[in-house]
Amino acid sequence: MKIVKTIAEMRFIRASLPEPLGFVPTLGYLHEGHLSLVRQARTDNASVVVSIFVNPTQFTPSDDLDRYPRDLEGDISLLCKEGVDAVFAPSVDEMYPPRFDSRVEVDKLTRRLEGASRPGHFAGVTMVVAKLFNIVQPARAYFGQKDAQQAIVIKKMVADLNMNLEVITLPTVRQQDGLAMSSRNSYLSADERQAALVLYRALMLEQGLWSQGDKDAEKLRNEMVKLIGKEPLATIDYISITDNETLEELKEVRPPALVSLAVKIG
Amino acid sequence: MKIVKTIAEMRFIRASLPEPLGFVPTLGYLHEGHLSLVRQARTDNASVVVSIFVNPTQFTPSDDLDRYPRDLEGDISLLCKEGVDAVFAPSVDEMYPPRFDSRVEVDKLTRRLEGASRPGHFAGVTMVVAKLFNIVQPARAYFGQKDAQQAIVIKKMVADLNMNLEVITLPTVRQQDGLAMSSRNSYLSADERQAALVLYRALMLEQGLWSQGDKDAEKLRNEMVKLIGKEPLATIDYISITDNETLEELKEVRPPALVSLAVKIG
Repeated sequence: MKIVKTIAEMRFIRASLPEPLGFVPTLGYLHEGHLSLVRQARTDNASVVVSIFVNPTQFTPSDDLDRYPRDLEGDISLLCKEGVDAVFAPSVDEMYPPRFDSRVEVDKLTRRLEGASRPGHFAGVTMVVAKLFNIVQPARAYFGQKDAQQAIVIKKMVADLNMNLEVITLPTVRQQDGLAMSSRNSYLSADERQAALVLYRALMLEQGLWSQGDKDAEKLRNEMVKLIGKEPLATIDYISITDNETLEELKEVRPPALVSLAVKIG
Repeated sequence: MKIVKTIAEMRFIRASLPEPLGFVPTLGYLHEGHLSLVRQARTDNASVVVSIFVNPTQFTPSDDLDRYPRDLEGDISLLCKEGVDAVFAPSVDEMYPPRFDSRVEVDKLTRRLEGASRPGHFAGVTMVVAKLFNIVQPARAYFGQKDAQQAIVIKKMVADLNMNLEVITLPTVRQQDGLAMSSRNSYLSADERQAALVLYRALMLEQGLWSQGDKDAEKLRNEMVKLIGKEPLATIDYISITDNETLEELKEVRPPALVSLAVKIG
């Protein structure tokens, strides 16, 4: 497995990797969610590249750039076992040299939900993902359903800009008790970690009510609000039931619907 | 020579065209300036694709989208003689389907000169060129020096977004009397066409003074202003002497300097 630090070296190595190539872009501090993407990429493709880059442009000023967890050696060891061909781990200066002056953005889709809570976040995501796609030139790129809006935004960018690759979204990987795997879970105290389960419980409640015949989005949303309201450590950022492609709010919930929620814990 | 109308067909044909591929994006109504790009692409590459697309997003509201000259049949006939492999001539709907939602922009470099006079113009250019590059996947793309800022902006986009191709700028092709070839010259009356020669005379004056030792940008600019002021049909939009990469104004003129000027005729 090659560890690649520069764009020039990545391009050089890329040229000799067999087609099709599967690509998993990450911020590192890898968990089973990332590894599920890597394993699918390994199954689907002749070669696999994983990038590890804590991209500063997707962190808003109030985000956690400085304390975002990192463990490059541990990540490399995990990826080696998965039969990855190359890990691309560039520096910030390598990706954003002086006088960097370009932008790649998706507009309407990024104004709601996570985009409304973290202005500029998705502009940073589309920027770095466009760069990484151009450097790595994958046939397929893999993203987790946990960041549902991100996957939808990237699919839109790929379609609009005619990028020649397929974006594949894989299910959220959860711990046994239902907490979604996330590098940021490392921030949680034991009490907060317990409180965070309210997210999963809210999703399960919604799914249960819906499968019993409750299709009214307003009612389903209110039931989730009520449940989360009982958890003293949780403050709701947003709960939203939308179309899975346009991100427009639904009145009546039918597939393909997306239930997305964000809750502040602590 | 294939005439290609859809993105899907272009991708299909592209896959069988030999590497490296040279690409010349145009708005059509081709003249010797375009053909000089096509000939260089033919010399440098194993295959050549030319696109003909009057891209609406690069026309500002006060621009000439509706009356921009078109002659697809004439263009195809010219390109056939140059040994072009495929002409990509998509419709507006094919390039910008409903709910199109993405943007590719270069920031600082597009705020001056042509970008200041035509706000949004370069955002349209970078958008469509990024799409065309992704569809055609060239090793080299060719642009004319006549639209000097455009070539600089596209080079910046390609560098910043790590697009895997080389941007090549070729000299402006002029008519015998010095007027730069341009599809828009068809708008000019006989008098206006004569008046438009003032652009070339101003550039020649600047070059002459500079080579005699006048290096002061302010003075050179003033001499050009004076010359153009004598032409009653000409109104200066801008005259600028800048660095050829950053587009920052120069005080002392040394290579690589860019002298750019825009004049309204009529």
